[in-house]
Amino acid sequence: MSETSFTVEILPDRIKVRAKAGENLADILARAGIPLSLYCHERGICGKCAVRILSGALPFPAAQEAALIEGRGLGPDHRLACLYEVRGDVVLETLPGSRLERIAVIESGASPMAFIDPAVRKLPLVLEKPSLYSPTAIADSLRAALRSPRLILPLGALSKLGGSPALAPARPIIAVLYDDVEVLDIESEEGGGEIFGLAVDLGTSTVAAELVDLRTGKVVDRTAAVNAQNAYGADVVSRITFAFENPDNLRRLKHAAVQLINDMAGTMSRRSGVARHRIYDAVVAGNTAMNHILCGVAVDSLALAPFHAVFSALPALPASEIGLALHPQARVYCAPNIKSFVGGDITAGLVASEFTAQPGTSLYIDLGTNGEIVLKKGRDFVTTSTAAGPAFEGMNISCGMLAIAGAIHRAGWDNGFKFGTIDDLPPQGVCGTGLVDILATAVARGLLGRDGRIVGPEKRLRLTDRLALTQQDVRDVQLAVAAVRSGVRLLLREFRISVADLDRVVVAGAFGSSLDIANAVSLGLLPNLPEGKTVFIGNASLAGARLMLLARPARAAAEDLAARISHISLATRPDFQDEFIRGLEFAPYPEEQP
Amino acid sequence: MSETSFTVEILPDRIKVRAKAGENLADILARAGIPLSLYCHERGICGKCAVRILSGALPFPAAQEAALIEGRGLGPDHRLACLYEVRGDVVLETLPGSRLERIAVIESGASPMAFIDPAVRKLPLVLEKPSLYSPTAIADSLRAALRSPRLILPLGALSKLGGSPALAPARPIIAVLYDDVEVLDIESEEGGGEIFGLAVDLGTSTVAAELVDLRTGKVVDRTAAVNAQNAYGADVVSRITFAFENPDNLRRLKHAAVQLINDMAGTMSRRSGVARHRIYDAVVAGNTAMNHILCGVAVDSLALAPFHAVFSALPALPASEIGLALHPQARVYCAPNIKSFVGGDITAGLVASEFTAQPGTSLYIDLGTNGEIVLKKGRDFVTTSTAAGPAFEGMNISCGMLAIAGAIHRAGWDNGFKFGTIDDLPPQGVCGTGLVDILATAVARGLLGRDGRIVGPEKRLRLTDRLALTQQDVRDVQLAVAAVRSGVRLLLREFRISVADLDRVVVAGAFGSSLDIANAVSLGLLPNLPEGKTVFIGNASLAGARLMLLARPARAAAEDLAARISHISLATRPDFQDEFIRGLEFAPYPEEQP
Ligand code: FES
Ligand code: FES
Repeated sequence: MSETSFTVEILPDRIKVRAKAGENLADILARAGIPLSLYCHERGICGKCAVRILSGALPFPAAQEAALIEGRGLGPDHRLACLYEVRGDVVLETLPGSRLERIAVIESGASPMAFIDPAVRKLPLVLEKPSLYSPTAIADSLRAALRSPRLILPLGALSKLGGSPALAPARPIIAVLYDDVEVLDIESEEGGGEIFGLAVDLGTSTVAAELVDLRTGKVVDRTAAVNAQNAYGADVVSRITFAFENPDNLRRLKHAAVQLINDMAGTMSRRSGVARHRIYDAVVAGNTAMNHILCGVAVDSLALAPFHAVFSALPALPASEIGLALHPQARVYCAPNIKSFVGGDITAGLVASEFTAQPGTSLYIDLGTNGEIVLKKGRDFVTTSTAAGPAFEGMNISCGMLAIAGAIHRAGWDNGFKFGTIDDLPPQGVCGTGLVDILATAVARGLLGRDGRIVGPEKRLRLTDRLALTQQDVRDVQLAVAAVRSGVRLLLREFRISVADLDRVVVAGAFGSSLDIANAVSLGLLPNLPEGKTVFIGNASLAGARLMLLARPARAAAEDLAARISHISLATRPDFQDEFIRGLEFAPYPEEQP
Repeated sequence: MSETSFTVEILPDRIKVRAKAGENLADILARAGIPLSLYCHERGICGKCAVRILSGALPFPAAQEAALIEGRGLGPDHRLACLYEVRGDVVLETLPGSRLERIAVIESGASPMAFIDPAVRKLPLVLEKPSLYSPTAIADSLRAALRSPRLILPLGALSKLGGSPALAPARPIIAVLYDDVEVLDIESEEGGGEIFGLAVDLGTSTVAAELVDLRTGKVVDRTAAVNAQNAYGADVVSRITFAFENPDNLRRLKHAAVQLINDMAGTMSRRSGVARHRIYDAVVAGNTAMNHILCGVAVDSLALAPFHAVFSALPALPASEIGLALHPQARVYCAPNIKSFVGGDITAGLVASEFTAQPGTSLYIDLGTNGEIVLKKGRDFVTTSTAAGPAFEGMNISCGMLAIAGAIHRAGWDNGFKFGTIDDLPPQGVCGTGLVDILATAVARGLLGRDGRIVGPEKRLRLTDRLALTQQDVRDVQLAVAAVRSGVRLLLREFRISVADLDRVVVAGAFGSSLDIANAVSLGLLPNLPEGKTVFIGNASLAGARLMLLARPARAAAEDLAARISHISLATRPDFQDEFIRGLEFAPYPEEQP
């Protein structure tokens, strides 16, 4: 054993690791699988990485380190791990609040955990007292205090620094840092440490949003609404066409989305008591057209063949540039698009479900308006989008509705249809998962032919006194099922594999709180996998937006994924039509290799 | 001689240099003192670095290189220097337009030359034709065409990329690049290659501006006006106090400056026929308070002891954030302040006069409202500012005026005062250099005592039928002279040197088109140096702003200088009062060591 190697024992875990002389304790802990909350990024100014040194050297702390330890009410045997260099064997104990926290990303189905690492952080500071003899500009004093020579200081923050409150001697100020390099704001202590974020799933048909506490990862409130852009066209294509007509139309669409998100943020702010200016960051997951329109970027290129996106990934933008009324310096990040055709809603869902991290062969199906499908085999990814239409989101269905309170979301048979509704309210309509259950039950009971024809003279599937499905409703679902199935089969064909080769199917979508997999299989919507291998994860786009809000590495992962996936355009595939027509049957996937 | 070393001969200069195998021809030329205009930064997409290979290898050019060479009407013996790797002896000839151009920075006095290297460049491009089979987002096609994976694309530029004109197949677009990394705009060919910049000297009393062609370095138009902020206080202190009173006042001051600069830009645009949206970049040189106010940054810290600046250097900001109505995506750069006390007007003047580059011991005096002085000895710099007041700018003087048409700017004696006026118009008032001449002449003729008292009962120095200087006017100049002289002497004392040790004195200021050095020496305004060692360079702040507009390295030089200079506060020097009172005499500097 070399002389310059030591043992570090970590309590209470009793984990022992070897460390090189001079190695940083924070790095050693991370290597040992016990990452600390390096809140200030190892600048030695937040004090959150303090540990107790039970045995080992206790070098004399610098004034700031001592003050931080004392400020947390800790004893003289504590040190900041980010400043501690190992020079001998050490036994240490981590403190309850010191470890990096993990949060669950998705509540149902797959439940990956993520470390909380938001882009926005607040650091309390006391600036060096200015004097005539050290004519440092205040901004440079702040750079010194934050140990960030390259700090970006927008004019708003500079003005706060030059204003009287910040000049009161020895008064702590709070620097609101974005992505470690930019100061969003300078606040006084009264402002407190509150940091909230807004996660938005900007769907073509429906918009869902969450207000998230960026310190704890807790969802403070959530809300959903029909996309106000519906007034200008029910589907993506009609909205793109509308925007293409003239620039004012683009502005109208953008304004409708911005206004809706602002209203939703306002509602959640009111209900939760969280001031809007405490929302410093937002992540929006939407399909390619949605995020282009939200950013006010002309979509002519999406209107004209060969239908190219203008951008795939964007840096975080000032929310004010988009028009979002949050903190005046808040940022907004759009989940990246996969090349031109598959949107940020899908990359968000993929990172939320940890699709990339799983071994083996997996299929991801998002049952939204576009029916996007991603197939992963080892390290290779291929994706396509299908024109499933908004049937699963309850749109275009005579008694369809969003998956909100009062929606029929489960159905079975007991001498007639039996329904479960969201929040157990009297049934007001049918949401996507309810449709799947109803149609599968109707086929099983002989009320509906496998060809989609409603049996009997009434040509309606009567559900309750007030609710019924028409032949047209059934046809809409039938087309959607066929679109998804043919997309899945073409992707499998691309990788020369069959359903039996799939290790896992992940189904995402905002169309219900749970999906009866067996019913979806019997209709031919999903391939038939052994029990437990198909999971429904609900609105993964929203979960992904929340994840990108809470953990910056998820953004990089999404961008990396977006850059790597290859894309198949169904329109260019001669075998698609045939596959599609064969899929127009309410029956399980055919057995043969696709 | 090693095998891997070759000879490169450059015609028409007949310069021969050695080059290593694989070395880039553009680098070799720069090393030989013949830098080429590497307009696209050696990306091989502008074609401006083409040279003729008279002897040596002519490797087969890639399609784009061949197209660029052909596009310039050059023969097959031409290659792009930035792509040419030396693999044997080469004889080459540079083309007339290929060399990096130099421009004179200051017309009078010192005349350093600078290479033109503006922050804004226009690069014509043809984007790869999109297809269904290569679903690259248009922004990524642009990144590929510009060979800049890290390209920053603001939403405005993205929207242009998504708009129909940019989508027309094989139609060239023009990318307007800022600082090599950010796309300010996407233009169509019709826009042409025009690139203009705005240089502004934002003085406390007067504002001067130039419209500059960033391709040629030519000043297209210039204009000057009284600072509209005068309505809120004639000097810096009264304006800071006004702004400190309430935030609306700060906004008023900011608005006055922004409005004035916009008006000046509008005037020059009208007169020259240069559209305002062809102005992509601006540099503003102003003192600390002026640039804080222009940026809307609270100046409370400049109002309260110990009078600290909020910032010293700022990155280039969107002009729209400041409120300047130029190209919608134009940038504005503020010349950096030296610590808290000496402004960007001085750093601008220092880089314009190449003060730092000169060997030996030099003194820089800016005769503006604050009378800033910089002393350089070897690599050490020290600076101070004196409360000279605006007398030299014609302010507070009963018949004072700016150094504009009709101002008396020279005076002598021939049986009475004899005057020269700017543009030879009938005299309408006296500018700063005129004041110096008049007072020096009056002292020499016995009309004015060395103590500043006007001789004779009238207590006025009658100049013309309509113009005269009052006793109060003389006192104002006297105080200004004493402030500057005591500042100079204290700086000399700081470095323990005397006037005789000075190699050079550079006098800057917007107070006349030329300064009679002998008269200034006789009044005690300037130290007495041998003939030719004192130069007057006029409005060096404006020249410096122009230089930073035309040559980016000047910005880095100014920031470096600002960070390095040490500062003396006269207020903290116990010996200042004594020096000041001794300076209240219209007489040459005392001989003794200060
Ligand atoms: S990480 Fe903040 S003090 Fe160590
Ligand atoms: S520098 Fe532009 S092509 Fe060589």
